[in-house]
Amino acid sequence: MTPRTSATRKHDTLAMWAMPAIDVWVATASVDGGAHLVPLSLAWVDERMVVAVSAASRTARDLAARGRCRMAVGPTRDVTMVDAVLERTVPVGDDDALADSYAAQSDWDPRGSDGYVYLVLRPERVQAWREVDEIPGRTLMRDGAWLA
Amino acid sequence: MTPRTSATRKHDTLAMWAMPAIDVWVATASVDGGAHLVPLSLAWVDERMVVAVSAASRTARDLAARGRCRMAVGPTRDVTMVDAVLERTVPVGDDDALADSYAAQSDWDPRGSDGYVYLVLRPERVQAWREVDEIPGRTLMRDGAWLA
Repeated sequence: MTPRTSATRKHDTLAMWAMPAIDVWVATASVDGGAHLVPLSLAWVDERMVVAVSAASRTARDLAARGRCRMAVGPTRDVTMVDAVLERTVPVGDDDALADSYAAQSDWDPRGSDGYVYLVLRPERVQAWREVDEIPGRTLMRDGAWLA
Repeated sequence: MTPRTSATRKHDTLAMWAMPAIDVWVATASVDGGAHLVPLSLAWVDERMVVAVSAASRTARDLAARGRCRMAVGPTRDVTMVDAVLERTVPVGDDDALADSYAAQSDWDPRGSDGYVYLVLRPERVQAWREVDEIPGRTLMRDGAWLA
């Protein structure tokens, strides 16, 4: 296999993020110094990664305190890594357009789940690689701007 | 599908961790408040999770500073989650028994990779679930002791 070009990696990355019922690993840092990690259903809406969690969850609390997270989409040998900042926290009943977009891609609809919020996350850095030969050239976005 | 029993989940978890060429997601918290997340090759050796990284990597530095991490093995809908503490950091040339065990399960051998270390991580809490119906009963280990 030849390492993919940046343009191909970007294409593959965006196709993966738009897949129905795709999941994302979300890693956050807590104020007590611990790390948290959970799999969540992802929607890719208007250039933002959107997940839905309980406002009381550790992921929501960490993001409220820290403002950022690191995420992974894809299996370990076809990964896309995203460092993102929290742009908005939206109660599930407050934005029907966002909720419709989330439900259209995800395989569940959190509207009606008490205390749930959408976390709208803006990517700042994106990396994508399959195997070791793709480590060079893995950065596709830096400071919020696509490089390819 | 009926939710698996705790005994079945423990069996499935240990079988997954012992698979050849299995990977682990390792989430760590940095002293600057950020979260880090990377996929690494896993070996399950003497009841410890073992990964190999450069001593200069962010994962190694975060673990040296914080002493703990959260890990995931398996796809997002058949996950095992592990909160672990760093027990030992071993330069790759210093412990041939450990290095042989790592190379026997992993699909690479870091001996010869300059500056690489094994991180030997002791699980304290283990959880395993597939879908929402398995959220109850997901905790298989607490305070380092298997519950089933």
